[in-house]
Amino acid sequence: MKTGTMKIDSVDFYYLSMPEVLDIGDGSQDALLVRVAAGDFVGWGECEAAPLVSIASLVCPMSHSACKPVQASVLGQPINNVDDIRKIGNSVRANSMDLLQADHTLSGIDIALWDLLGRQMGEPVWKLLGYKKCFGKTPYASVLFGNTAEETLQKAKTISEQGFRAAKFGWGPFGLTTADNDRSQLHAAREGLGKESILLVDAGTVWNTDVDSARARLSVLKEVRATWLEEPFVSGALSEYHLLSKECAPVGLAGGEGCHNFHMAKHMIDHAGLKYVQIDAGRIGGITVAKDVADYAAAKGVTYVNHTFTSNLALSASLQPFAGLESHSICEFPTELKSLAMVMTKNHCVPDLNGMLHVPDAPGLGIEPDLQGIAPYLVDTEIRVRGKQLYKTPPLR
Amino acid sequence: MKTGTMKIDSVDFYYLSMPEVLDIGDGSQDALLVRVAAGDFVGWGECEAAPLVSIASLVCPMSHSACKPVQASVLGQPINNVDDIRKIGNSVRANSMDLLQADHTLSGIDIALWDLLGRQMGEPVWKLLGYKKCFGKTPYASVLFGNTAEETLQKAKTISEQGFRAAKFGWGPFGLTTADNDRSQLHAAREGLGKESILLVDAGTVWNTDVDSARARLSVLKEVRATWLEEPFVSGALSEYHLLSKECAPVGLAGGEGCHNFHMAKHMIDHAGLKYVQIDAGRIGGITVAKDVADYAAAKGVTYVNHTFTSNLALSASLQPFAGLESHSICEFPTELKSLAMVMTKNHCVPDLNGMLHVPDAPGLGIEPDLQGIAPYLVDTEIRVRGKQLYKTPPLR
Repeated sequence: MKTGTMKIDSVDFYYLSMPEVLDIGDGSQDALLVRVAAGDFVGWGECEAAPLVSIASLVCPMSHSACKPVQASVLGQPINNVDDIRKIGNSVRANSMDLLQADHTLSGIDIALWDLLGRQMGEPVWKLLGYKKCFGKTPYASVLFGNTAEETLQKAKTISEQGFRAAKFGWGPFGLTTADNDRSQLHAAREGLGKESILLVDAGTVWNTDVDSARARLSVLKEVRATWLEEPFVSGALSEYHLLSKECAPVGLAGGEGCHNFHMAKHMIDHAGLKYVQIDAGRIGGITVAKDVADYAAAKGVTYVNHTFTSNLALSASLQPFAGLESHSICEFPTELKSLAMVMTKNHCVPDLNGMLHVPDAPGLGIEPDLQGIAPYLVDTEIRVRGKQLYKTPPLR
Repeated sequence: MKTGTMKIDSVDFYYLSMPEVLDIGDGSQDALLVRVAAGDFVGWGECEAAPLVSIASLVCPMSHSACKPVQASVLGQPINNVDDIRKIGNSVRANSMDLLQADHTLSGIDIALWDLLGRQMGEPVWKLLGYKKCFGKTPYASVLFGNTAEETLQKAKTISEQGFRAAKFGWGPFGLTTADNDRSQLHAAREGLGKESILLVDAGTVWNTDVDSARARLSVLKEVRATWLEEPFVSGALSEYHLLSKECAPVGLAGGEGCHNFHMAKHMIDHAGLKYVQIDAGRIGGITVAKDVADYAAAKGVTYVNHTFTSNLALSASLQPFAGLESHSICEFPTELKSLAMVMTKNHCVPDLNGMLHVPDAPGLGIEPDLQGIAPYLVDTEIRVRGKQLYKTPPLR
């Protein structure tokens, strides 16, 4: 196969899931693995959340000219250079403009295309993105709050013993009851981590748009020297974020994982008073859009951070867009992954002896899916419309 | 069944489609009809676009606590008053926060709930929304540009002969080639309509974020006295809208149909320099959210307009949120509907002898679905996961 003549031959979506999915804020309980093939090359990606819905948006019948299935803008398209990836994304956004799920679906495909192109060119993705050098990040162990302050204390101690210098606690009971209960949780987290560690707090949008509820937690967040308060509100609540940002220093506001396109992230950077913008490459439209946000954040003096709560394939994808930004130096590192997310890949991103995390130094994303490992988690899925099979779980290959 | 004890017993989604769907910007080629039953009452709604994807989001397996299928927050919930509808919407947005398609899916359910409650209480929806009086609107015939200026001229003449005092031309070739071609199209539209009619122009996001391309059409838009230029850019392009808004007067900017939650519409009102905000109740989360936007727009001096390009059920739903706002006086009225959208309902919204359009003065939305009429358009659909049937087209009832 000559360079310059590859076209996208196939896009396969694999719905993977734990046998039982619990009603907790743990995003590693299922996954949508994406395989894209072009010529002699294959790339792998992952879409965040709701596998069945993203599968439906890949294959659904056209509703009208601006509501086409995502695959209509992908299959058969040329893929020979970085510009081709951007063209495909632009085409999906135009042709599937009225298909809301399309951005999530595109994300896994875009990630797989970067992986494919990197493998074909023998370069890691961050180099294809234009970075000359990549920098290690300080990983923060990302976990859920314990159900009790005592559980949180134990979790924090374990994290500290594992050598992490930063940790994030989120979701669970936080914000759901009284500010006093949250105070106990936060002091437990700080106590378990020790005085020197970076403590991050994720409210998981629990207060929706209620500024007063968030305000009621500011004093204890300052007491425990939290570096950031993440997602006190839903992603769209720009003016509420902005109000809180004027009162929370030195605690910074973090948010953005809910953004599903460049514009939403730009609005949060421009109007929400964020110190940290958190982007999930598996959700915002892939590595292409995530890199655009990283560039914009850097220009605006806002720190870019990855959002990742799934496999190491998603982790590598989410690290690439800011791998070359030296001063954007911390990264999310989920440490309570379900077995599915662990077995999904043959190799893993692991902090080095100095506790720093590095993007894999191998072509593409540098992560190999473990097809044997994931086989038991494959969820057989079938969609039929007018008697015609539009989707059937493809064989793992 | 006593008032105050109803719970939602069932939510049925019906995928309807024309036998052939064309690659044109006509949103009336398919539909997702929603039936909600509670106690002795039934309500009907409609979701905008991508029926299969919205069906998948109704029934998909849970991914985690913030990524649940939409039906998990709807089935079995109490529905006895207006507040119950808002609670259900809030619950869907929280429990399906990471399921991007959820807002579109909720929209049809919310509409059906207003219809159901109106039928149960014997009141039209606009009264339940708090309006004391409703006002007729000047409907604008909403059509696609012809492929040539000559075709557009004929369309405009026909619209004028039908007695419409306002018309909107959109999509088709507009904006895709040269500003000169667009000039011919716009002059043809003005000529066909006559000097007095309101002329509206819909660019259908064709310039994405390219301000210069939009700018190149401003002089002719002013020449033909267009009242508004709609969607020169994608919904998220707030700063591009804002830039253009400073140069386009007396032509106003219109946009907002892409908004899928209150926040997005608020951002457009706050930051895009719009004179008209266009909301599709079948997309933004239903009548509840649309009414919130109407209130906010009125408070900010921006004119609210419905967006509708499907059946008269969707039209009635989209008119209710601003039925009581006297000075927000024009409304979209699609006049080139495919047969599916026409036969979908037994009764239709028709302008009166003075050319004014009124929301139906009957309980609920005042529109009766024609189950016999739509039967031939019903698309048999089936979704199976792990051998279990999650969705199968229910019988029309």
